Parts: sequence; C-alpha cells; structure tokens
Amino acid sequence: MTTDRREAGAAADEEVVRYVEVPGVGDPRRFGYAQAVSAGGLLFVSGQLGIDEDYKPVSDSFDEQAYRAMENIRRVLSAAGGGMEHLVSMTIYLTDMRNAPRFFDIRREILGEILVSSTAVAVSGLPLPNLQVEVQCVAHIPPSQPTA
Amino acid sequence: MTTDRREAGAAADEEVVRYVEVPGVGDPRRFGYAQAVSAGGLLFVSGQLGIDEDYKPVSDSFDEQAYRAMENIRRVLSAAGGGMEHLVSMTIYLTDMRNAPRFFDIRREILGEILVSSTAVAVSGLPLPNLQVEVQCVAHIPPSQPTA
Amino acid sequence: MTTDRREAGAAADEEVVRYVEVPGVGDPRRFGYAQAVSAGGLLFVSGQLGIDEDYKPVSDSFDEQAYRAMENIRRVLSAAGGGMEHLVSMTIYLTDMRNAPRFFDIRREILGEILVSSTAVAVSGLPLPNLQVEVQCVAHIPPSQPTA
Repeated sequence: MTTDRREAGAAADEEVVRYVEVPGVGDPRRFGYAQAVSAGGLLFVSGQLGIDEDYKPVSDSFDEQAYRAMENIRRVLSAAGGGMEHLVSMTIYLTDMRNAPRFFDIRREILGEILVSSTAVAVSGLPLPNLQVEVQCVAHIPPSQPTA
Repeated sequence: MTTDRREAGAAADEEVVRYVEVPGVGDPRRFGYAQAVSAGGLLFVSGQLGIDEDYKPVSDSFDEQAYRAMENIRRVLSAAGGGMEHLVSMTIYLTDMRNAPRFFDIRREILGEILVSSTAVAVSGLPLPNLQVEVQCVAHIPPSQPTA
Repeated sequence: MTTDRREAGAAADEEVVRYVEVPGVGDPRRFGYAQAVSAGGLLFVSGQLGIDEDYKPVSDSFDEQAYRAMENIRRVLSAAGGGMEHLVSMTIYLTDMRNAPRFFDIRREILGEILVSSTAVAVSGLPLPNLQVEVQCVAHIPPSQPTA
C-alpha cells in the first residue's frame, strides 16, 4: 500500500511543467526563460509587463501598462489551465511608488473579491525603458478532477 | 483505492485560504489584498512593514520599524495557525543597504536558531514615505494532526 | 486507511529542511540565515551573489560575478540533492539593467534547455559594495524514489 500510494502520487507531486507558448504573449525562449513553471502544486509566473507579443511596450501610460500586465497574467494562467481566481501571491515592482494607489485600483477592478498576498516596492529600473510596472505572481491551479 | 486517495488528498492539497483579518494588523481589503494566502502547503505572507493597524508608520527609527514588521509577521502567522518557527523564506527590501547588518541582528534576536532562506536588496521606495524596511515571507505551517 | 495515508504522507509533506553548510559557499549562520530551506515540496534558495566562501566579491566584472552566482546556486542545489535541472523560478536583481542581456546569455549558456520562470528588476543596492547581480531561486527536487 505505501509503495502504491507513493507511486500514484508521484505524477502529480513531482511533475514540473514549463509553459513557453502563450497565445498573445511573447515567446520567452529568445531570452532563455518560460512564461510560467508549475511545480510542487504551485505555478510560478514570470514577471509580466505592459508589453505585446513582440516585447514592445503597449503605451507610455501607466494605466495601459498595468492593464496589459494583468491581461498577460490572465493569458499565462489560461495557458496553464487556470484563471485569475487561482492567484495566490503578487509582487509588484513600480518605477514610481506614486503609482501604487492606481495599481491597487486597477487590480481591484480586475480581481474583485480575489484577494492575493501582496508586496509592493519601487525599483530603479525594469527590463525595457519606459516600463513602469512589473508583476510577478504565484498561482495555485487545482488539478483536473478525475471523472471517476 | 486510487480515487479514494485522490479525493481524500484533495481537501488538503487544493484548498486555498485567504487570511484577511489579523488582530493588530491593518485590514488589507482597503487596498484589495489579503495579509496571507495559503496554497500548495505553503503560506505566502504579504510584505510586512513597520506600520500599525491604521497603516501608520510606528516610528522614523529603523529598529522600531524592523521590530514592528517582524511582530506583524508573527501576528499574520498566528492568524494562520502558525508561528515564527514555520518561516521558510524571507525577502528583505531596504531603502538603505547600510541597515542590513542591523536587520540581521534584529532577525537573529527574534528568530534565534530558526534559519530562513534570505535575500536582501535595496529598493528606491516602499509603500509609504519614511518606511525603511519591508519583509516578504513564505512559511510552511503543518496541518493539524488528526487526533486519531 | 485514511489515517494511514495521512501519516505516511506526513514525513514528505511536512518536513522542513534547512541547508546551512554548502561546500564552496560561505557559512550563512554569521548572518542568521540558511543557504536554502525546503518545504512543501519546494526548495527556497537564498539570494546568491558573486562572492566566495569568505563573502568576498570574486571580481568587479559583471560576467565573473554572474558566473559565480550561478555556480553558487549549483552548489546549494547539490547540497540539497539536486541540480540546475530542478530550477523552477528565478528573480534577478541587477544594479544596472543594461547588464540584463548579458545575464540572459550567461544563464542560457549554463541552463541550456532548462527554462525557468524569470523576473528581472534593477535595484539600488546589493548586500556588498561593487556587487552587480543577485539571483534568488526556487527549485523542485524530486524525492529519492523508494527502491521498492
């Protein structure tokens, strides 16, 4: 029994899945990473930015960048079989902390009652010039239920 | 048997708990987040600061801010059924890296032999003016043992 | 059966291991932390830098610092029974974002087809003067298989 249990559990517990191709989000292989990696029951999502599929900033506007970063998160979660309701933790890197209240408003508009753990800091730079916000997430997407 | 095992495990593995109300720590709903979220066997604690229940900095002193941030972490862990001994990982954001040695001393004074994984960086700003340290943690609180 | 299952699983699920002594990497106890802590099926690795066993920067060169930080990560993973192929998530803190492309090249050279989730930000300081890059990782090291 014990051996059975371990082996049955191994597939779920030990599997690491690396998500690279996400519709609408740029191909991260050019920079040597994946858009998300699941392991140990959690999904680690790469820092998302207000950029399009070609890694071009969508706008100089903070709001448009924040909406796009959140939309990119939604797309990555979707590619991994989940949605925004599965978000657990969020680290927000801002180039100007004065944008934090606006980000919190946009997040609330998008997430509603889904309350994530949250950490916000101001940083001195993000991967591309003019970007003002980067959002790093951890999610928990329940495995599909066996249909018995 | 396999189906039994999966279903029995589902409650523990798939449950996400969002901790919002923490005695002595401010209500995070005003900013659209939770003080901690547990998922996948881990507890992700929101970045804690030297602030009181009204989100007011407790002091301009680094030490008092650091002690309060650690005390707020203790309170969040307690609300989730755990304690400082369950801390796993800690990311420390400082506005001035010269405060790092002092933070490490305070941490050692509080945590004693509990050694966490640790990353420290200096950032250009924290959520409120005059704040000098933010501490983001991951913890692992074992589930209550069945009494049988 | 249910009790059996829970108790059998407890050892793997609830064990927290704190890795302190890592050959070739400095002893973190002097600063009150561990080089890595495993919990919940994941390994949280402390931020690694281009420093030697005595916490001395190996060079003023970005490249040499990056290679050493990655080598220190490899050593920590090895002490925990794993390797670079078990990396899941990576947060890269740079003092100058212009070094990001170079870091990505070095990472690709070392990791090859192992694609991690990735977040890069520029920070205003790292734990020691002249350091230019800090790398924080999460890994997933499968438990040793029972020999049946």
